[in-house]
Amino acid sequence: MTIDTARMVQMANAIRALSMDAVQAANSGHPGMPMGMADAATVLWTEYLRHDPKAPDWADRDRFVLSAGHGSMLIYSLLHLSGYEQPTMDDIRNFRQLGSPCAGHPENFLLPGVECTTGPLGQGLAMAVGMAVAERQLNATFGNALVDHKTWVIAGDGCLMEGINHEAIGLAGHLKLGRMNVLWDDNNITIDGSTDLSTSEDIKARYEATGWHVVSCDGHDFDDIRRALDEARADERPSLIACRTVIGKGAPSKQGTSATHGAPLGDDEISAARELLGWDAKPFEIPEQVYADWRAGAAAQATARDEWQDRLNASADRKEFQRRMAGDLPANFSLDGYIQKLMAEPQKVATRKASEMALEQINHKLAETIGGSADLTGSNNTKAGGIGPFTADDYSGRYIYYGIREFGMAAAMNGMALHGGIIPYGGTFLVFTDYCRGAIRLSALQQARVIYVMTHDSIGLGEDGPTHQPIEHVQSLRMIPNLLVMRPADVVETAECWEFALRQKDRPTVLALSRQNLPQLRNAPDETDMVSKGAYCLKKAGNGHQVTLVASGSEVHVALECAEQLEKQGVGASVTSMVCTKLFDEQDAAYKAKTIPAHTLRVSIEAGTTFGWERYTGENGINIGIDRFGASAPASDLFEKFGITADAIVPQIMNKLNG
Amino acid sequence: MTIDTARMVQMANAIRALSMDAVQAANSGHPGMPMGMADAATVLWTEYLRHDPKAPDWADRDRFVLSAGHGSMLIYSLLHLSGYEQPTMDDIRNFRQLGSPCAGHPENFLLPGVECTTGPLGQGLAMAVGMAVAERQLNATFGNALVDHKTWVIAGDGCLMEGINHEAIGLAGHLKLGRMNVLWDDNNITIDGSTDLSTSEDIKARYEATGWHVVSCDGHDFDDIRRALDEARADERPSLIACRTVIGKGAPSKQGTSATHGAPLGDDEISAARELLGWDAKPFEIPEQVYADWRAGAAAQATARDEWQDRLNASADRKEFQRRMAGDLPANFSLDGYIQKLMAEPQKVATRKASEMALEQINHKLAETIGGSADLTGSNNTKAGGIGPFTADDYSGRYIYYGIREFGMAAAMNGMALHGGIIPYGGTFLVFTDYCRGAIRLSALQQARVIYVMTHDSIGLGEDGPTHQPIEHVQSLRMIPNLLVMRPADVVETAECWEFALRQKDRPTVLALSRQNLPQLRNAPDETDMVSKGAYCLKKAGNGHQVTLVASGSEVHVALECAEQLEKQGVGASVTSMVCTKLFDEQDAAYKAKTIPAHTLRVSIEAGTTFGWERYTGENGINIGIDRFGASAPASDLFEKFGITADAIVPQIMNKLNG
Repeated sequence: MTIDTARMVQMANAIRALSMDAVQAANSGHPGMPMGMADAATVLWTEYLRHDPKAPDWADRDRFVLSAGHGSMLIYSLLHLSGYEQPTMDDIRNFRQLGSPCAGHPENFLLPGVECTTGPLGQGLAMAVGMAVAERQLNATFGNALVDHKTWVIAGDGCLMEGINHEAIGLAGHLKLGRMNVLWDDNNITIDGSTDLSTSEDIKARYEATGWHVVSCDGHDFDDIRRALDEARADERPSLIACRTVIGKGAPSKQGTSATHGAPLGDDEISAARELLGWDAKPFEIPEQVYADWRAGAAAQATARDEWQDRLNASADRKEFQRRMAGDLPANFSLDGYIQKLMAEPQKVATRKASEMALEQINHKLAETIGGSADLTGSNNTKAGGIGPFTADDYSGRYIYYGIREFGMAAAMNGMALHGGIIPYGGTFLVFTDYCRGAIRLSALQQARVIYVMTHDSIGLGEDGPTHQPIEHVQSLRMIPNLLVMRPADVVETAECWEFALRQKDRPTVLALSRQNLPQLRNAPDETDMVSKGAYCLKKAGNGHQVTLVASGSEVHVALECAEQLEKQGVGASVTSMVCTKLFDEQDAAYKAKTIPAHTLRVSIEAGTTFGWERYTGENGINIGIDRFGASAPASDLFEKFGITADAIVPQIMNKLNG
Repeated sequence: MTIDTARMVQMANAIRALSMDAVQAANSGHPGMPMGMADAATVLWTEYLRHDPKAPDWADRDRFVLSAGHGSMLIYSLLHLSGYEQPTMDDIRNFRQLGSPCAGHPENFLLPGVECTTGPLGQGLAMAVGMAVAERQLNATFGNALVDHKTWVIAGDGCLMEGINHEAIGLAGHLKLGRMNVLWDDNNITIDGSTDLSTSEDIKARYEATGWHVVSCDGHDFDDIRRALDEARADERPSLIACRTVIGKGAPSKQGTSATHGAPLGDDEISAARELLGWDAKPFEIPEQVYADWRAGAAAQATARDEWQDRLNASADRKEFQRRMAGDLPANFSLDGYIQKLMAEPQKVATRKASEMALEQINHKLAETIGGSADLTGSNNTKAGGIGPFTADDYSGRYIYYGIREFGMAAAMNGMALHGGIIPYGGTFLVFTDYCRGAIRLSALQQARVIYVMTHDSIGLGEDGPTHQPIEHVQSLRMIPNLLVMRPADVVETAECWEFALRQKDRPTVLALSRQNLPQLRNAPDETDMVSKGAYCLKKAGNGHQVTLVASGSEVHVALECAEQLEKQGVGASVTSMVCTKLFDEQDAAYKAKTIPAHTLRVSIEAGTTFGWERYTGENGINIGIDRFGASAPASDLFEKFGITADAIVPQIMNKLNG
């Protein structure tokens, strides 16, 4: 449906008024973008975006991502005006105040209708790529009847200038994600001033070079916006819609300048804007006709939901589809049988290989996994279980060749997880978490089930040298809230970690995995699921308990060797496998005291920074690790050079005991 | 000079032979790239690259960056064959072994002639942009007589696919860095296989869209390579030279496939390659004629150095130029006078503002600083001291509008620092260290004097919310080896940190600075340079010493308030300002014990993760911090919500003392 232009103008002005008033009330925020994109957003939301304010979680809704998240008042206005239950006008009045769901940047965990958290520039668009991937893969699985929607993005110059944009659009163009359409707020302004200060790029040509369809429009002309959106919708390629806009449109003396970008306009300017726009309503008041027009627009876009619901009810796939969209694993999912086989036939394999073995099981049992690697498939061992490539020609595939795009991969995985129906996992070398750390943090903040398969997790990587050897990475990732970092010690723990990670619906996991082979350390069939408490006693002290060795991953077998030598010298030593510090920190005091007793000499062993291990070893403990950059050499030479061997460690323990 | 084609072929084959033999001996490495780019590299190094093997540190040499650093045998071969003192043939024989300067990836601190460490893909090219910036800025300062050289890069598909490539070439294109030329090893192969697996991009069109000149050539035809290099050299824009090559060229059954990329070819294939190439020499032996031709090529390229030396000797700028290239500060450089003024007139300012005030002094005293910000100039307070913009029209400027390109900025700063003659600093929000962490790590590994001005360093950022509030960042940066993280508490400490950072010739510094105003905590004129030991006692205990409060940055004044309340209750409490944990860790045991006495109750206060603070507070200490994501609200509301106030902290201390 199309509403009369004069009334469309007022619908858009409602966004402008709410945005400038809320920012003024908060005395902080970004009015420029919502005011500039108000017209295009009004057309998009009332005539193109298929959504239903009454059902923000409708599985087949179009996804909308405000990649330029600083312009958050745009999406809060759109949700409110369209008739979503939240945000209420009070929420908007409390924009940027403690407890309001209208936070400085849109947060997916605060407001239904906010598909993802967009603050860090560039990542919204990159997550949208993942949403578009998820849509196509689910479409290939469940057909047009159940999955057939689009992904819309509003992005600004910042989103397009960030490096991740190159990775994201490269992936989208290559995979021909034609249902993805990006409205670029082409306003020539960044925080520092005119875009001329920092860029001379022909953005449209760059998008075209990357396989995108590009169309331009006057972002303040409703008909021209419609023409461009129609063209974008019709094209088989992903589309960039360049909306030429005036930032802060409607603010008479400041529009078109960076002064409107990130600061309140001021009372005088706002009064003048009201006059210019012909907007008589008081702050935080919306005329009835404007509300009615917005709600009518939303209602028109929502009609498709009833038909979809009928199709779902009639579908033989209904239960499976609903299970997947709910994020539940199949009731009978378990790796127990596989783990029991490992117990019966111990194996010495690298944990990256152990991960591949687990994936061989998982990918057969779970149709919802989509794997991939940032061009290290053979090293990350991520392609397993018979899954084929996801390509522009075959969206039923479940393996993505992400290319050399770590950040783009991680953000796309966030998008897939947030879309729902998919559990994404992807690999690179652990050291390159530095390249995608921004997205890993957003996995955690957004409570997204993304599993990072990070291999070559220490100097055990060997010859590639210090640029490729993690030192601070494991420990520094452990500090990110709501992120599980799991570093399994052998093939059994690796399987347990995989199962545990898959069962975490609202937190991501980094699996830190070895390049080098590691002996299997457990074979007792009744000792299973040992990793869920984060750490556990792997070997009890023989003689009187004097020493507790706490190690993770590839250093656990070193700890066992230390314990063996110590016991031979009459010193009782236990070994605790610290698989995940965060899970261990969540345990009660009694479990912690039992697992790492304070009356013993506590020794941590991990082939990385010692910083932070004092939490587990106390003031008089010993922390074995590496507090410098690594070196290029075969792995065994490096473990010797850096003293991560029983022969180097045991004398230090004996000295301390005797000292 | 041009050498007969048949002999050129053998010169290139020498690279191929060394590369395949060294990788085979190491049983690891990447023969494909050196073999594919051998022909182009031979032309470049003997006919275009102005360098002198006898003087790898010649200030006006062309810079050469092997961005595709995994192909490290290419640069080791080039250096050896050209007659550099290192690597020797024994070094090459020990490729990738402990102690050899021929590490898995080229390391600038191991071999003269290696301009920068290139392992993490994309960063070499991005550092070269910084080198090209440094060249133009120094040229504008010292003229053609002293500074007039080019920057050459060899890059692979991985370097071009990484997000940072978009940022780097955007900057280079905008700044019209025409003396920068990138040879792209266009071989259609990545680790996972054909580039078709992951990309459909028209790379040449993308570069053209970004302001680059593009030329193509047959990477195995010497004349065609020359034609392309001539064209690149003549064009005023930065140039991309697409060299169509066959990866692993010369390996008869494997060339052109990903099998040659990252693994030894095997003895049989190497024998067959010798036959195909007509290369009779034994492994690690080079025929005399080949050596002679290489050395002749290098000698021809080195002739310019004598003339340059004459010009330098005659120059009035000689001393200043030499000082700057040596990285020495002027003998009379000091901020003491300024700091004394602060002592006399205490001020309450944000430390980001304090940084601006320090820069106002520094940029007047030091001509070698080049500042900038990733589009947050007004927030980072980085433009100070009257420096003007560095633009394509005016290379004498000292302020770079980096645009929304954090990673590109950081990598460019590394390039500037490594080029020499420049001390780069640049700003963004601290939370966006996640976007440029890969480059910060390389600053540290490369021992580069880069100063990161990271503002908005805690929940004190306020309304922008959790995506913009650092929680784990300060602590996780502290773990990076050789990186100083300094978090000053007031205007005085900020000035001291700046001076300290500027004096560190071989390590980078992150300054973590507040958005919010902070009271000045010191005004004793005789207490200066307090930050150099990392931590110091700011306030002694009044009553008997029971409590030591250890805080950093914006929480130091909170610690002082706690101490005041404690003293009122009769509890003697001292306050230690922890400006830099790494510097403190370097102090002797006596200083540490004096500064944070173990017999007291030790309490850390920092508005970030508590993980790791146990190192300073022991097992029975109290760690006040934030172990979750932040929230959107005014800063003062957040400090209250998260309990970072004296009123929230003191009762916990009293409970512990009484418990």
